[in-house]
Amino acid sequence: MKKLLTALVFMGMLTASLMLSAAEIKPVKYVFLFIGDGMSVPQRMMAEEYSKRLGKGKLCINSMPCQAVTSTSSADSFITDSAASGTAIACGEKTVNGCIGMDAKRKNNLTSIAKVAKDSGRKVGIITSITINHATPASFYANRTSRSNYYGIALDLVNSNFDYFGGGGVAKYNDKTSKLYKGNIYDLAAQAGYQVAKGKQAITALKPGSGKFFAVGAEGPLPYAIDRTADDMSLADFVQQAIKLLDNGKGFFIMTEGGRIDPVCHSNDAATVMHEILDFDKAVKAALEFAGKHPEETLIVVTGDHETGGLTLGFAGTGYKSYLENLQYQKCSQSGFAVKLKELADSKGTLKFDDIKKLMKEYFNMVPAAGKKPKAGSLELSDAELKEIETAFNDQFPQGVNKGGSWLARIIVRIFNNKCAVGWTTGAHTALPVLTTASGVGAEEFNGFIDNTDIAKKLKQTVR
Amino acid sequence: MKKLLTALVFMGMLTASLMLSAAEIKPVKYVFLFIGDGMSVPQRMMAEEYSKRLGKGKLCINSMPCQAVTSTSSADSFITDSAASGTAIACGEKTVNGCIGMDAKRKNNLTSIAKVAKDSGRKVGIITSITINHATPASFYANRTSRSNYYGIALDLVNSNFDYFGGGGVAKYNDKTSKLYKGNIYDLAAQAGYQVAKGKQAITALKPGSGKFFAVGAEGPLPYAIDRTADDMSLADFVQQAIKLLDNGKGFFIMTEGGRIDPVCHSNDAATVMHEILDFDKAVKAALEFAGKHPEETLIVVTGDHETGGLTLGFAGTGYKSYLENLQYQKCSQSGFAVKLKELADSKGTLKFDDIKKLMKEYFNMVPAAGKKPKAGSLELSDAELKEIETAFNDQFPQGVNKGGSWLARIIVRIFNNKCAVGWTTGAHTALPVLTTASGVGAEEFNGFIDNTDIAKKLKQTVR
Repeated sequence: MKKLLTALVFMGMLTASLMLSAAEIKPVKYVFLFIGDGMSVPQRMMAEEYSKRLGKGKLCINSMPCQAVTSTSSADSFITDSAASGTAIACGEKTVNGCIGMDAKRKNNLTSIAKVAKDSGRKVGIITSITINHATPASFYANRTSRSNYYGIALDLVNSNFDYFGGGGVAKYNDKTSKLYKGNIYDLAAQAGYQVAKGKQAITALKPGSGKFFAVGAEGPLPYAIDRTADDMSLADFVQQAIKLLDNGKGFFIMTEGGRIDPVCHSNDAATVMHEILDFDKAVKAALEFAGKHPEETLIVVTGDHETGGLTLGFAGTGYKSYLENLQYQKCSQSGFAVKLKELADSKGTLKFDDIKKLMKEYFNMVPAAGKKPKAGSLELSDAELKEIETAFNDQFPQGVNKGGSWLARIIVRIFNNKCAVGWTTGAHTALPVLTTASGVGAEEFNGFIDNTDIAKKLKQTVR
Repeated sequence: MKKLLTALVFMGMLTASLMLSAAEIKPVKYVFLFIGDGMSVPQRMMAEEYSKRLGKGKLCINSMPCQAVTSTSSADSFITDSAASGTAIACGEKTVNGCIGMDAKRKNNLTSIAKVAKDSGRKVGIITSITINHATPASFYANRTSRSNYYGIALDLVNSNFDYFGGGGVAKYNDKTSKLYKGNIYDLAAQAGYQVAKGKQAITALKPGSGKFFAVGAEGPLPYAIDRTADDMSLADFVQQAIKLLDNGKGFFIMTEGGRIDPVCHSNDAATVMHEILDFDKAVKAALEFAGKHPEETLIVVTGDHETGGLTLGFAGTGYKSYLENLQYQKCSQSGFAVKLKELADSKGTLKFDDIKKLMKEYFNMVPAAGKKPKAGSLELSDAELKEIETAFNDQFPQGVNKGGSWLARIIVRIFNNKCAVGWTTGAHTALPVLTTASGVGAEEFNGFIDNTDIAKKLKQTVR
């Protein structure tokens, strides 16, 4: 027992010195917080390896000098949801799954780092690629017992007085079924002094000034990076704009969420995840470029809110081999592919399995091995794989007619993933910790083991 | 482009300052290196949560003040094996899978940290729970083109002049088929000056002195912690003994491998993994207790060599719920259970499915839900699960007679794992990075992102 105590003292000495330094974090003029929704260690590391295989080198998010393993559990669950983890990251306190910016009893409002930053005189920007009143961004400006109360959350956005909202649109912006209904959220935002700009042209026309901005990039979420057209804006576009519009003598706090990593981890669609994370990385790069001009005044922190999908960098069928480079041959998201299948069925009336084979070649570079054993690492389909896909086709398209749903797209993407040596274990979240990386002033606070609540606790000091 | 350059300078400034400090690592009298074979982030974090649910608190390995995410790829594979990763950790250079203590061309011998420590005048101990000439421990004393050359590796052990070998026995210790054959390895070790002690009684009788020690805890590997009897020694026992036998004025370097985490990750047997990691943690605790007495002279580093199994902290069938506490009801390893099945079949001649039901209750606390829907989080078997087990029983035991193999045990353990909310994706390794944690003098070197080769590079400086 005595031995154990001395050992604990030995460890404690070091822990105490770390904790002491946490109390000494100095204010920083420019603070960026990036959150990859559903992005944990496997997602980050798979995207890095994928990037390397495409000759694009390491990711910014994994090249920062400091890194902390970050626990994510919520007040009521080992496996958190995005509302509880968003609240922990934004406010520094554990709450129950589903709850936004309120304590675990769903009674008391919590204060987010964004509000602390606003009160300090800094300008505040909130950016996401998913809808702007989704759980993660909501945690920075809203206090609601339920993440599903989209209209109520959007009202909190209107009343936040924050300086910039950008990215996806407002979910249920005109929800007349809400008891809180007061009108179209965009109208209310305009009444509250926001310049509401919808679409690329209007958004890019916004000019710096004393006003507040609401840059609505899409009706719902922004399109997935893999599906994006020239008419769509990227997450990096919004970060660059926010920097331009918010830079001022008192500094800013900008939270940017890669909000569509999570949905495609839920659907176990690795190629689309890769595109989302590379896109997220470009958004972080925009902040790093700004930091290069203000190295003594900038802190950049990059985290995830939880792991989604039980993603692993290997798969039973591929053993010790890895074929991540094959992910480049997927040309649209799984959900985008499901839409293409539906559209083709709608236009042709009935589909034949040959139609599916053509689409698989076009969008996944997968071709039948035609009785031969597929070459290792190729995207040739074995007879068994082709049979499984045909069965799924017959299930969703009996006699070639679309029953609806996206079963066939799911099966095709699962087989494609496995051929790339990617394994998944769930369509839900897991409890794997995430990584928090940091560079700039005060970055050394983000080393060792921390909890997601520590991010808010530390960052609130930087924006005092 | 200019913007990017300034951003890179911003990141580089911090990286450079970190690299500079790496060149300044001071020698440390007592250095412990612990390696969990197959132990990456999911294994560490699942064991921690399991420990908490059993009221046993946090793990020592996850309570250290410093932590580095550590890449593991080998010279020829994104997914490493234990030979290449052991060589990287021991010698600081990448080699190809399968190669021990030699460069990637399999031509030049590499120098391990253990040899550097020995040359400095420190005493050296090598401990593992798997056979002592297995890939990981071998990387610290052997130079062989193939990990399968067990006899040649064991000859390197005999000639190493290291001061203490402890844990599992020598694989193929009397391999007369080897071209290198010179006699029974244990005899050769004795001739080389080792006190060879076999079994608990002989081992515990070893006394400190100027001699060299070879403490052979078992014919092959040590038993799994979950299967251990009072006659068996634990990994912590060997660490405590090595400390006692090796402590001297010039210090020591002790490498301890939790070598049996990996095999049970290969077989996707989570409960046995939990026991192995808790056992490994106790071995680390023994070092921490020593460090408590020598806080200014001790460095403890804990790492893993790769991830095995594609382990995830969640499973499709259990959604956002986690039932890790149910893992405590498994009473023996999967391989131990396969032996019990075989023994029962041998003694009874033929088995009935009712025999299997009894064993599942006894060793896994799994009982049929008898037509009802199993309670959430219970270990009740649904009709479908029971049917799957019965099919496996009929496959391995047609008409009740054992065909051999361990198929039934595998299926039972897979279903048990899934009911505990544990998912796996492979029976091989994956490329997920591992964590390296550290406490004591120089521990701050182990923060941020490092490569497994950095461990040797840093540690070689501490034992100059």
